[in-house]
Amino acid sequence: MTEPLFVIPLWADLTAVALGGIQGALFASGFRGQRRLDLLGVAIIGIVMGMGGGLIRDLLLNVTPATLQSNWYLIAATLASLVGMLLAGLFQRLNRAIIVLDALVIGLFGAFGTSKALAVGLPLVPAVFVGVCAAVGGGILRDMIMGLPVAIMHVGSLYAVAAAAGCVTLAGLNAFGVDLVLAAIIAVSVTTVIRILAVVFDVSLPEQRVLHRRKVAIETAAIPIVRPTDV
Amino acid sequence: MTEPLFVIPLWADLTAVALGGIQGALFASGFRGQRRLDLLGVAIIGIVMGMGGGLIRDLLLNVTPATLQSNWYLIAATLASLVGMLLAGLFQRLNRAIIVLDALVIGLFGAFGTSKALAVGLPLVPAVFVGVCAAVGGGILRDMIMGLPVAIMHVGSLYAVAAAAGCVTLAGLNAFGVDLVLAAIIAVSVTTVIRILAVVFDVSLPEQRVLHRRKVAIETAAIPIVRPTDV
Amino acid sequence: MTEPLFVIPLWADLTAVALGGIQGALFASGFRGQRRLDLLGVAIIGIVMGMGGGLIRDLLLNVTPATLQSNWYLIAATLASLVGMLLAGLFQRLNRAIIVLDALVIGLFGAFGTSKALAVGLPLVPAVFVGVCAAVGGGILRDMIMGLPVAIMHVGSLYAVAAAAGCVTLAGLNAFGVDLVLAAIIAVSVTTVIRILAVVFDVSLPEQRVLHRRKVAIETAAIPIVRPTDV
Repeated sequence: MTEPLFVIPLWADLTAVALGGIQGALFASGFRGQRRLDLLGVAIIGIVMGMGGGLIRDLLLNVTPATLQSNWYLIAATLASLVGMLLAGLFQRLNRAIIVLDALVIGLFGAFGTSKALAVGLPLVPAVFVGVCAAVGGGILRDMIMGLPVAIMHVGSLYAVAAAAGCVTLAGLNAFGVDLVLAAIIAVSVTTVIRILAVVFDVSLPEQRVLHRRKVAIETAAIPIVRPTDV
Repeated sequence: MTEPLFVIPLWADLTAVALGGIQGALFASGFRGQRRLDLLGVAIIGIVMGMGGGLIRDLLLNVTPATLQSNWYLIAATLASLVGMLLAGLFQRLNRAIIVLDALVIGLFGAFGTSKALAVGLPLVPAVFVGVCAAVGGGILRDMIMGLPVAIMHVGSLYAVAAAAGCVTLAGLNAFGVDLVLAAIIAVSVTTVIRILAVVFDVSLPEQRVLHRRKVAIETAAIPIVRPTDV
Repeated sequence: MTEPLFVIPLWADLTAVALGGIQGALFASGFRGQRRLDLLGVAIIGIVMGMGGGLIRDLLLNVTPATLQSNWYLIAATLASLVGMLLAGLFQRLNRAIIVLDALVIGLFGAFGTSKALAVGLPLVPAVFVGVCAAVGGGILRDMIMGLPVAIMHVGSLYAVAAAAGCVTLAGLNAFGVDLVLAAIIAVSVTTVIRILAVVFDVSLPEQRVLHRRKVAIETAAIPIVRPTDV
């Protein structure tokens, strides 16, 4: 590779990590399941949300994880988790602030992921895929570790779709020669706006059920057929 | 490494990815849990089943994921998921077709995984391990993302055993100098036949319980002892 | 990198893998959930506990997984799982032996993980992070594959804290020029002792709830606010 590798500025990367950490700790603080999280558990979810997206991105790209090359990422994610924990009571009343924060975080992770994938030389489609994985991967890890149903899998509010729209925008603008920083700003805006509008207007994708109109009785009977390994 | 790296032909790889995508979407379409999947959720499971095995294989081998080096993998997996979704009603009546399709998919992923691991220079035992992970890894990811009990962990129908038999066959034949393409065809056949026979004759491994004959009361009492971190 | 890479002696690595395998199989043998594990399931958990920590460590470091470079790791993990399965009845009565074994395993994985991360050139903070991931990662994988709540997330007995204390000790001693082997022995002792004392005296971290004293009713009402993607 002769062209210089695209470098995400450290301050921008750390900002995304810290926002993700706050968001993760807020989420985990609000969690009241069968088993309670201890303080460490809340901090772990903050770190997972702050650093998980970047780790997944770099694993998929097979490059050394950027978040482990400097002390600052873990320090930023941990401090942000602490801030999120301490302010959980306050923030949870600021409903709108959380939704905007969350939308911004997936926009940032998606844009950084797609940019880095393109810089490493991936074609357009997988570059968008890596961006979406970076945007939603932290949340998937969070849900799996917390034993929750994975949010993006279920009838929701265009979470992954908003991320994908931003990543496609960035890759498209980049293909037409638009400056990467400008393209990234537009991409983050696209994701953030779609996500916020989806929450505000409660838009969601149609369920699978709508596609093939069959009676529920038949559908239920069909389940053991699909998965014969189960008892 | 002076010898040329073994290359799986793109058409063969894409066929396995597409079959996996169809199988994943069929599975997810038939799913009726507490929370319903939306269309995106079904597509995600299709992509996970089509590309997950290859991604896990390449992560374990620490090579750049092949499925992200070309646009075609994601396009094939996504189109296959759509086909699987649209034909879900039809396919679920073709019970046998699904079982054969599934057996073929784990055979293909296992053979490609073992071949690539041997080509990268892994010893025999870990090469078989990578093959089995490639064969069953997509299904494990699928179950973890969908919040289901992981199928291969429970009393089932020799799912992982069939995969392992094929991978051992390939590695063994390769060690005796058999041509890799021929070895791969035999290996896929071994896995497919074992898996289909296991389903047809309902063969399964003995449960752990059979090994140490102790009273259930004692066993239940013993659980908190093994895991003292739980409350 | 001009300095020779730190190499964990094979016998030490295999010992940790085998102890982890025994511990994993003991855990899985004692498991009585809704769905029963078959023999393969127990062996898989043994392999996951024996090799999972090392795999996660090498994935995070982006180096070729050491556990796949030799036949011995998988053989050791599998044989250890078999031993664990056969002796499950005996071991589960030796409550103390299991707790000591478990504490020793996380100490060893933590020390090896931190050492290797430092040897690869990671700064202090991420090196400790990689060590902790290596120590507790196998257990997280185990719980996710078995569909259990992830143990380290919940009010427990300083599991991850004990691992972190050992990793910090090793990294600190190394920074002050202490010989790595000596530092590793001290680090393993620190982790093991803290973990055993925590179990004996039933010490645990305070819950998140203690931090922000709000009424439970308000907290419960706040949950849907934090996670608007859920229905």
